[in-house]
Amino acid sequence: MENRHLLASDNASGVHPQVLAKLAEVNQGHVPGYGDDEVTQRALALFRDHFGAGSETLLLFNGTAANVLALKGMVHSHETVYCCEEAHLQVDECGAPEHYIGCKLSPVPGLRGKLTLAKIEQLLAADRGVVHRSQPRVISLAQATERGSVYSLAELQAIVAFAREHELLVHMDGARLANAAVALNVGFHELCAGVDVLSFGGTKNGLMMAEALVVLNPELQRAYPYIRKQGMQLASKQRFLAAQFLAYFEDDLWRTNAANANAMAARLAEGLAAIPGVTLTAPVEINMVFAQLPTDWIEPLQQLTPFLVWPGETHSEVRLVTSFDTRPGDIDLFIEAVRPLSER
Amino acid sequence: MENRHLLASDNASGVHPQVLAKLAEVNQGHVPGYGDDEVTQRALALFRDHFGAGSETLLLFNGTAANVLALKGMVHSHETVYCCEEAHLQVDECGAPEHYIGCKLSPVPGLRGKLTLAKIEQLLAADRGVVHRSQPRVISLAQATERGSVYSLAELQAIVAFAREHELLVHMDGARLANAAVALNVGFHELCAGVDVLSFGGTKNGLMMAEALVVLNPELQRAYPYIRKQGMQLASKQRFLAAQFLAYFEDDLWRTNAANANAMAARLAEGLAAIPGVTLTAPVEINMVFAQLPTDWIEPLQQLTPFLVWPGETHSEVRLVTSFDTRPGDIDLFIEAVRPLSER
Amino acid sequence: MENRHLLASDNASGVHPQVLAKLAEVNQGHVPGYGDDEVTQRALALFRDHFGAGSETLLLFNGTAANVLALKGMVHSHETVYCCEEAHLQVDECGAPEHYIGCKLSPVPGLRGKLTLAKIEQLLAADRGVVHRSQPRVISLAQATERGSVYSLAELQAIVAFAREHELLVHMDGARLANAAVALNVGFHELCAGVDVLSFGGTKNGLMMAEALVVLNPELQRAYPYIRKQGMQLASKQRFLAAQFLAYFEDDLWRTNAANANAMAARLAEGLAAIPGVTLTAPVEINMVFAQLPTDWIEPLQQLTPFLVWPGETHSEVRLVTSFDTRPGDIDLFIEAVRPLSER
Amino acid sequence: MENRHLLASDNASGVHPQVLAKLAEVNQGHVPGYGDDEVTQRALALFRDHFGAGSETLLLFNGTAANVLALKGMVHSHETVYCCEEAHLQVDECGAPEHYIGCKLSPVPGLRGKLTLAKIEQLLAADRGVVHRSQPRVISLAQATERGSVYSLAELQAIVAFAREHELLVHMDGARLANAAVALNVGFHELCAGVDVLSFGGTKNGLMMAEALVVLNPELQRAYPYIRKQGMQLASKQRFLAAQFLAYFEDDLWRTNAANANAMAARLAEGLAAIPGVTLTAPVEINMVFAQLPTDWIEPLQQLTPFLVWPGETHSEVRLVTSFDTRPGDIDLFIEAVRPLSER
Repeated sequence: MENRHLLASDNASGVHPQVLAKLAEVNQGHVPGYGDDEVTQRALALFRDHFGAGSETLLLFNGTAANVLALKGMVHSHETVYCCEEAHLQVDECGAPEHYIGCKLSPVPGLRGKLTLAKIEQLLAADRGVVHRSQPRVISLAQATERGSVYSLAELQAIVAFAREHELLVHMDGARLANAAVALNVGFHELCAGVDVLSFGGTKNGLMMAEALVVLNPELQRAYPYIRKQGMQLASKQRFLAAQFLAYFEDDLWRTNAANANAMAARLAEGLAAIPGVTLTAPVEINMVFAQLPTDWIEPLQQLTPFLVWPGETHSEVRLVTSFDTRPGDIDLFIEAVRPLSER
Repeated sequence: MENRHLLASDNASGVHPQVLAKLAEVNQGHVPGYGDDEVTQRALALFRDHFGAGSETLLLFNGTAANVLALKGMVHSHETVYCCEEAHLQVDECGAPEHYIGCKLSPVPGLRGKLTLAKIEQLLAADRGVVHRSQPRVISLAQATERGSVYSLAELQAIVAFAREHELLVHMDGARLANAAVALNVGFHELCAGVDVLSFGGTKNGLMMAEALVVLNPELQRAYPYIRKQGMQLASKQRFLAAQFLAYFEDDLWRTNAANANAMAARLAEGLAAIPGVTLTAPVEINMVFAQLPTDWIEPLQQLTPFLVWPGETHSEVRLVTSFDTRPGDIDLFIEAVRPLSER
Repeated sequence: MENRHLLASDNASGVHPQVLAKLAEVNQGHVPGYGDDEVTQRALALFRDHFGAGSETLLLFNGTAANVLALKGMVHSHETVYCCEEAHLQVDECGAPEHYIGCKLSPVPGLRGKLTLAKIEQLLAADRGVVHRSQPRVISLAQATERGSVYSLAELQAIVAFAREHELLVHMDGARLANAAVALNVGFHELCAGVDVLSFGGTKNGLMMAEALVVLNPELQRAYPYIRKQGMQLASKQRFLAAQFLAYFEDDLWRTNAANANAMAARLAEGLAAIPGVTLTAPVEINMVFAQLPTDWIEPLQQLTPFLVWPGETHSEVRLVTSFDTRPGDIDLFIEAVRPLSER
Repeated sequence: MENRHLLASDNASGVHPQVLAKLAEVNQGHVPGYGDDEVTQRALALFRDHFGAGSETLLLFNGTAANVLALKGMVHSHETVYCCEEAHLQVDECGAPEHYIGCKLSPVPGLRGKLTLAKIEQLLAADRGVVHRSQPRVISLAQATERGSVYSLAELQAIVAFAREHELLVHMDGARLANAAVALNVGFHELCAGVDVLSFGGTKNGLMMAEALVVLNPELQRAYPYIRKQGMQLASKQRFLAAQFLAYFEDDLWRTNAANANAMAARLAEGLAAIPGVTLTAPVEINMVFAQLPTDWIEPLQQLTPFLVWPGETHSEVRLVTSFDTRPGDIDLFIEAVRPLSER
């Protein structure tokens, strides 16, 4: 069986053809570098359409930078960021936030990737004003989360209200914001109400390499152009970042892509749930399926696609991720590979 | 007159069509992320062909990162980097090296952008072993330099020998290495003899956004994968960085591009030199022309293309930069705009 | 009742008279600054007597710096330090390690302040070689711990052996090393077998403000003088740091002081254990007593001395700390204040 | 001849007896740590007396930290500090500012250690608002300077006015502020009009090891307690830093000490000027004499005291520094050593 990386990650997918077309389209003549070009200006205008006229957006190369530079403009080095124990920020950035910002992160236990305020409240009470402790400053949450869950608008508003009450800022890691927006059937602006700075993902949803920092809080905007430059993320030929977002917003490609990925995950979940021996371990809200399989099924399935495994003795949990270009046939191929295992 | 940004910078140019074609070509199916894919492996193999089997290459998004991360793996924070006063590193990175590495830079006066060893020798003698001073560790030179000059192989070897004698490492900023290689008519490997770490540019010579860190010194290689990740420069869909280099090395596109840029600069220099009132202020070795013009010519010419100016009372120095896609007609158009000014 | 801060912390105590006398004694004439003086040389020779001829010692002002600068010379920013969740490093330094070193800390659950290797082994297996994770490099342990426990020599050797096997370095936070040495009845050299870098405390045991960095691993020694200087810890009038250690080692003042503190804690524990309602929550090994008291006793006792409390509904845990100058009468005074509470 | 380090540096001197006495005086009983004690509170009240009721002071161990932490609270990492090329900050801190703050320093040429505004004005115009450049934020000046010069009140006010006009903050390195205050015959408050943050020296003027950060600008005060802690400069037994300042301000010991040092430098200058072959190279304003001597006199004089030399072929410039405890006899001894050299 050929390993097609069907369900490995949304990073395993390629680039949507309309994005490639747009890159070719803007490849005309010479233009000013570093963002002073008309293509970039058009992209930034689209961001203002989606996030409000008072927002300021900076284009970046990748998601690590989006998260780290977002926080760089929000905390001093003696301040701290509350994030979920499972947050990408905390577990998968090789210490980039600590190194770049010089601050401590304060991971708190989550519920399927979602922050719970009770623990933050407790830490706040213990640490604020104590000179030996990093000072509370930011709540960073992922929408959608690394565990495939989505905060409801009500949950988000509760976090925002808590933050305001306790003089905290809110950072949203939106690496999969499009998937969450589709799941909740809302626009980006509504989804980000009360958020101070957003890391806006594109790469996982059909772009080649492009992310954005959307600074919604006007009081924080001034420093970011310098933070981006000092942060080694100012593209010289910036129109080629901008073009990706032109394609992304045109005809709501972002929505089409995310809707397909979410729908394919739903199809996958439905198919798996029908197979004896498989247990879905979480509701499927975006483009991720978490399920428990007998441990001896893992190896044969990884011939078809690699996937994340949390191994257990008799049963193991797996993460399967669909993409903007996953087709029903890909899902069915996988289901057809699983089914016989249950019949052995 | 339409402002066509003809001679503003090699960053003002777009992407070579073969590069765009290669991006489309590799956009097939799903592959592992973060560089574990076959396209990236092919690109890295080409780098080994060009830089030696013992070299290790890491692909990055942009040149700021290439320089800063190169140095991050070469110095401790209490060590220092000798670079030219005019080095991009020193003047145009918004303090990124100091911030990311935590070290001090030690700028020394240069000769048209080239380092002179006498001043370094003096600083070495004054600082080495003195606990109050940052300790000498790296010489960073640009090949070609920001002033359009090119170190001869003999000059490079003198610097390397000096570095070895004084237990210093050598970093080469090769943002325009292709232009230098064409100017000297040598291959990359020969051009980098004795260099420990190279920042290898691509974006200025026809790529979209892709640079590389070539770690030639095997003793330094181990940490760089982590430095790249922590340095926010690990692309998830890395095949799209790699593809740019596949195109770059295929049929020696790098050479064709740089040769055109260099030739157009030569044509421009020849044309300008023939106009009364214009003085070339430096030999033209790569794709940059430095010339002195009467100050009142500046404004009308900038209608056609912006360019860097060091303003003076009666005469001003200008920097004009050609690109991989500059055509003879572009040069002639500019010359034709200059000539009438001399005839007023 | 006058609040005499009897049992608040070993930091609440003053300076041993012999230390003050030594400061006066070395206050003669002019000498070279920054450690090139004869008093400092004598102190460093004493450190070599105690820690081995191959050790190198640097004098510092305080314990935060000792820990942070020790680690600065042991890890790169992309590497990590395993320490106990309760380690001072992790909870009470306002993020100083993260800020100064730029690395991530990896806290692991402890047993009364002592590291357990099982969790470290698990993290090592998960993280080593994974580019998205900070790379394992150092185990940092406190001897004695913040919870008043002492590693036996066998436990230490197990940790050292584990570290060697897994290519990790060992840092020892010896803020209370003298108390541990007395508890185990061994000398410093024996206590530090296999340790690479030691933070050697003095301030908590009768000095005014003086700590030392003892670099036992010769391969790590070269950079520390610069790390101290860049770390803002190079005293200009260094003889006054050195003098404190002259007094400390003379007639084994360190031992006399620590022995008194430990003995007073034992006396306190014995007295408390005899009072109905009090439960010692840990064996008393050094100068700290942890006990559980009825919550309503806390407030009246804090009139006499403040102390740390982990509050509970009916019973609360408290930490009581004795010092080099605690007298039997101080202990008895406190016991006499507790007893009546049990008789109400 | 015995080397008595008579004129090596004000750091070569010891501690004034009244300071030692005060250390002994406050060594009574147990008190809260980290500055919550009554001795520290008394010292801070004295600082408010001298610097204004709205000032906030933090006690530190040494001068490197005072300068670095002062600036840490004044700039973001993408901002820059204008200082004199000869500033201690720039040349003698082993890169501590760059490392700790992550910012770039912008050294400008000085006039005998004093900043000149013309060059700053030029850099400001070139860099402000340019995303590739560190952004102007602070002017840091030393009063008195490393070259023994003193800014007049009018000069200071011109700098302050310039800073206000250009939205810059002012940092004053007052390692030798007492000497400047004596030279100008003004109090500290007047001397610091318009300064935002002051590094207030004590160690060079008779203290053991104690410096202070005086935050005059109320808008900047909030973060400094955390900056000090994270900056590894929070003394646990803080009363022993505070006691030094109690002695310093009592009976204006600071003034007596500085006045003696300044007077001894004047005596030295007068004596040297009368010797054929010696040329004073700068007016003597504080406790430093700069003079040119025949190069072959240097070695014999350094038998008596080491001193800084800028060697020349026939003549060399030397720096001689007097202290709070320099006696007329010390000066005369040196003069008597110089005179015969002129008579050879």
